[in-house]
Amino acid sequence: MESYTDEFTQLKEQIDNELMSVVPQIEPQSLYEPIRYFLDIGGKRLRPILLLLSCRAVGGNTKQALDTAVAIELLHNFTLVHDDIMDHDHLRRGHSTVHIRWDESVAILAGDGLIGLAYRNLMKLPQQHVTKVCTIFTEGVIEVCEGQAFDKEFESRSDVTLGDYFLMIGKKTGRLITMSTRIGAILGGGTADEIEILRNYGSVIGIAFQIQDDLLDIMASEEVIGKTFGSDVIAGKKTYLMVKALELVDSQKRNRVYNIIKSKNITAEMLHEIQQIFQDSKIVEQANADIEASFNKANAILNQLPRQETAAGLREFSERLLNRKY
Amino acid sequence: MESYTDEFTQLKEQIDNELMSVVPQIEPQSLYEPIRYFLDIGGKRLRPILLLLSCRAVGGNTKQALDTAVAIELLHNFTLVHDDIMDHDHLRRGHSTVHIRWDESVAILAGDGLIGLAYRNLMKLPQQHVTKVCTIFTEGVIEVCEGQAFDKEFESRSDVTLGDYFLMIGKKTGRLITMSTRIGAILGGGTADEIEILRNYGSVIGIAFQIQDDLLDIMASEEVIGKTFGSDVIAGKKTYLMVKALELVDSQKRNRVYNIIKSKNITAEMLHEIQQIFQDSKIVEQANADIEASFNKANAILNQLPRQETAAGLREFSERLLNRKY
Repeated sequence: MESYTDEFTQLKEQIDNELMSVVPQIEPQSLYEPIRYFLDIGGKRLRPILLLLSCRAVGGNTKQALDTAVAIELLHNFTLVHDDIMDHDHLRRGHSTVHIRWDESVAILAGDGLIGLAYRNLMKLPQQHVTKVCTIFTEGVIEVCEGQAFDKEFESRSDVTLGDYFLMIGKKTGRLITMSTRIGAILGGGTADEIEILRNYGSVIGIAFQIQDDLLDIMASEEVIGKTFGSDVIAGKKTYLMVKALELVDSQKRNRVYNIIKSKNITAEMLHEIQQIFQDSKIVEQANADIEASFNKANAILNQLPRQETAAGLREFSERLLNRKY
Repeated sequence: MESYTDEFTQLKEQIDNELMSVVPQIEPQSLYEPIRYFLDIGGKRLRPILLLLSCRAVGGNTKQALDTAVAIELLHNFTLVHDDIMDHDHLRRGHSTVHIRWDESVAILAGDGLIGLAYRNLMKLPQQHVTKVCTIFTEGVIEVCEGQAFDKEFESRSDVTLGDYFLMIGKKTGRLITMSTRIGAILGGGTADEIEILRNYGSVIGIAFQIQDDLLDIMASEEVIGKTFGSDVIAGKKTYLMVKALELVDSQKRNRVYNIIKSKNITAEMLHEIQQIFQDSKIVEQANADIEASFNKANAILNQLPRQETAAGLREFSERLLNRKY
């Protein structure tokens, strides 16, 4: 994932170009400038790439899926802009978040505008796909909101189980990813079996991806991930690591973790203390093992696809995803 | 508009029941409870009623349009919840706004959820209408965001012309209303001519409706309209009255108006002073004349409809709208 090469670079460039071209070059500036800014500061474009690769995996032409791939990226960016407000995050992709660079009103509206632009792109779908794809997309919008609501609710709850965690990330993160692989397969003309296989594939890598995110938030440096170090801990997020820690560590350490996440001013030292607890209790190790197991499972799912030659892109993609550093 | 009777009461009840039934009775509570609360504190349901009456005006059956009517009301409520945050409004329909009763995060998410639910309802459309209606709907979402962005931009601008004002309200208020009449006509099986006539009708009453709103904000009492008295002035909104005043009054009065709207603490006395200036300079009188002229124009447009007997509902509706007190 360090740098995309060849095919991925090409797909990403196509997506980036298309993304910028769908933001109207008109007034009001206070709506379209922040949207352009946010799309322009980067992003891995995982979801649209997954959509295009899924389309190709079933023998489809990625050109037919580009508009929808871009719609999914626009939708994803809507969630980021609004989540950043709710989570008081100042930094995203190494740049100021929209509500910090402008203000909350601008960020609320930029997010709303992104939803509108996402649907506008979706409406370019060929007639035969509109109802089905639009329905999947809309159910995704609703589930992402549900996921974010659970995530916020969990911040003030101390009894979050691993089951709750998986329910939440299945909606908040997983849904857009399974939506991408599933819609890609539909637009590529996949059979019902192929669509289901790719949905499963998306579901498995979606979870692995979120656990990676949880891990990077506390284990990677700010410069590398472009986000505030330990922002999940600061916000009281019940990440995979945190839920595991609260379940596994002894009562003394658990109390210490509670005290830290409940304190109003979480220092860098406290974050390192949490990091140490995660490491000492082997939770980091286990998370890494879970991620690797998920990617193996994902590859096994891809083996079920009838066309193995066109699935090579997806296989390489998950390989890179497994090794991502940000 | 004081109280709906007979037919309107029936339509409104249908809409209200359907609205509450489409909010899922599931978790997360922090998403669905505020949505249910906001839909439950009332609302005139103008847009869905207009949609249903437009459907009927072209000979259609309102039952076929109910899902979409509800989608438009959900969309409208999304804009209210988010606008209330941006405008720091505490009161809506006589009750606390969502971000006041809960917090901003909850309100952002409730608004987002409402968009999702709106599209979910829209996706119940019969296959033949999906692309067309969904496209109009989506263009409406985008224009409403543009309108709100202009509205916010205008707050800090002192050179807003009447042309700017009409551009802004055409998007912010007008678009959802023309969308309602237009979609109603489409779902009712109207001809291209009928759809165009009803779009024009919506456009004219949309403007009249917004000028009424501007007037009520500063001329009606808080108990009657259920909103904070003078909230537009407090927020520095460039309403119809304000734009007219800044254009028409002498420089001494204009400076006084500027000083008031720029002051950090706008008192009740200041609001009454503004009210007095609006009255003395005949702006209130002119606004009322403009509203009446618009309604006459709207009626004249309705005369173009080939089926006059089924248009009676719309005619009565605009009559009531003209005389509304809140």
